Amino acid sequence: MAKLWSVIMAGGVGSRFWPASRAARPKQMLDLFGQGSMLRMTYERVLPLASADRQVVVTGSILGDAIRAELPELPADQVLCEPCGRNTAPAIAWAALEIARRDPDAVLMVLPADQFIADVPRYQEVAAHAARAAAEGSIVTLGIPPSRPETGYGYIKRGEARGEGVYAVDAFKEKPDRPTALTYLADGGYYWNAGMFFMPAALILEELRRFEPELMKLLDTVSADNIETLYPQLKKISIDYAVMERTERIAVITGDFGWSDVGSWRSLWDHRPAKQTTFQSGDVIEIDGSGNVLFADGGTVAAIGVHDLVVVHTPDATFVCPREEAQRAREIVDALTKDGKKELL
Amino acid sequence: MAKLWSVIMAGGVGSRFWPASRAARPKQMLDLFGQGSMLRMTYERVLPLASADRQVVVTGSILGDAIRAELPELPADQVLCEPCGRNTAPAIAWAALEIARRDPDAVLMVLPADQFIADVPRYQEVAAHAARAAAEGSIVTLGIPPSRPETGYGYIKRGEARGEGVYAVDAFKEKPDRPTALTYLADGGYYWNAGMFFMPAALILEELRRFEPELMKLLDTVSADNIETLYPQLKKISIDYAVMERTERIAVITGDFGWSDVGSWRSLWDHRPAKQTTFQSGDVIEIDGSGNVLFADGGTVAAIGVHDLVVVHTPDATFVCPREEAQRAREIVDALTKDGKKELL
Repeated sequence: MAKLWSVIMAGGVGSRFWPASRAARPKQMLDLFGQGSMLRMTYERVLPLASADRQVVVTGSILGDAIRAELPELPADQVLCEPCGRNTAPAIAWAALEIARRDPDAVLMVLPADQFIADVPRYQEVAAHAARAAAEGSIVTLGIPPSRPETGYGYIKRGEARGEGVYAVDAFKEKPDRPTALTYLADGGYYWNAGMFFMPAALILEELRRFEPELMKLLDTVSADNIETLYPQLKKISIDYAVMERTERIAVITGDFGWSDVGSWRSLWDHRPAKQTTFQSGDVIEIDGSGNVLFADGGTVAAIGVHDLVVVHTPDATFVCPREEAQRAREIVDALTKDGKKELL
Repeated sequence: MAKLWSVIMAGGVGSRFWPASRAARPKQMLDLFGQGSMLRMTYERVLPLASADRQVVVTGSILGDAIRAELPELPADQVLCEPCGRNTAPAIAWAALEIARRDPDAVLMVLPADQFIADVPRYQEVAAHAARAAAEGSIVTLGIPPSRPETGYGYIKRGEARGEGVYAVDAFKEKPDRPTALTYLADGGYYWNAGMFFMPAALILEELRRFEPELMKLLDTVSADNIETLYPQLKKISIDYAVMERTERIAVITGDFGWSDVGSWRSLWDHRPAKQTTFQSGDVIEIDGSGNVLFADGGTVAAIGVHDLVVVHTPDATFVCPREEAQRAREIVDALTKDGKKELL
């Protein structure tokens, strides 16, 4: 039987988790839940499906050393470092080429390194199911049953049934406005696109060669000697545009396993322990407060009498914001960028 | 003419400025207004009246080195380090003894190191006036005309006029409740006790020997060799109880020079620049906020969309609290003390 490989996408920047996230330590490197970094959680979640010698991380050069330190189990050559980000299609294509060279029959699971999954056993079942379906010659994406009219995610419109829990894909939908999201929710045939894909390496390469021949022609010539000059010339395109929205060989498997993309400090609030009126991480002293996300990273957060706030402490910066406006952390990153304060980025 | 010496009282702990204030760096060592430390501001304010060779600081042993570093102009032997705090009477008595040995005719001005004075030229006039009045053989205290029914200060009830702006003292009053403070304000004859005293060294020593003979007997035998064992045996008593409230030779000079005792983070709000809707100190990024006291000490405070908050960043701790509850910072100090977290105290 074909072997399953993970391709963990760990190139993200994550400015919405400033000041904990920095250029040299983006979201996927953070221990947001006290269970290890998002990257390590991603790796460990699929360890029963793909042992360490079959997990590959794609990231930016600046993060290579940090990722090798975070996942010392991985052979160093399984951390692929892009000289610059070219969106997801080149990253997945590169990983698929490298894996196919070692294991031409490999089935890949492409996994963002910065997602939270509450029900890991259920997730592992769904992933195993998707891997089996993929091995039969499909690109299988995971669709999450929506629980609210979320406008921050893309959606997948389910088509006809093809097997148990496996459906054709009628369409990929961009992030909708709220009225549209409400119709999706009411319809029942729309799922959140979690950005997780399962497919044979040979199949994704075949489709990439078909839809993006120039990209693949250039990638085929990439080696350690020329990557610094060649990689920046690759077309910047997402795997959704390059393949998923064009291919006929796509299917969706739906599953509810407590998925969240952890998009901002606010999302930690959704993951607070049951019956807690506050989310605390690290060394926190809270007196007479509620509704807060208090995050102490290398120090102490002491809060008295405040409500519905995000407070993040790092040794060189503190961030404070109403909880429901927490995505505005990127405004600080923008201001720092404009002011050239590189030491805080 | 008798020479004027300062006795700067710099032994305070200042837990209400946590996390910027710590045991080893209390309030008087902080640069709260971007104009240098409170201690240095105190020293420089009276420099036209008392040159560096006539300024003496009394503090605790733990602060000696920091104070000598903060005021390198002072000869090292003008920083008197108490092995332990025994309240103000022993500290003033010790300083008076040391100064009287060098200059028996000295006139002292006793000045807390942790006060803010907005109108320094006016203050210098009042202080010079008080020093002249003291030199004629009085203990002269400064009374501040109250601008609100403050319950956090002691009051001085003015008696009959003795000279231009100089009055007898009818009574010292403890911190009043609000109804009492309102009657003081309406009466017009009550002044805030700023804790600043002017008097000949010989006179304060005479009065101390009269009212607290045991204290002085012990202090007379103190030397560098025995201070560690003798000082802790001194009676713990304030100069108010020991002398001011008992002596007949006291007078008050009233003056309005923008005095404030800077009692908590909230008081920085009173000292924000004109037309500013926020108080900022250090490296602060504020977007869509108002009414805040944002204090960055060795790092950056970034705040979005928050109002009427105190936010203080230090490298190892962040404090957040509604502005009007800022005096509650001491609750954090209490919690840390209880938990034995000495590194944050």
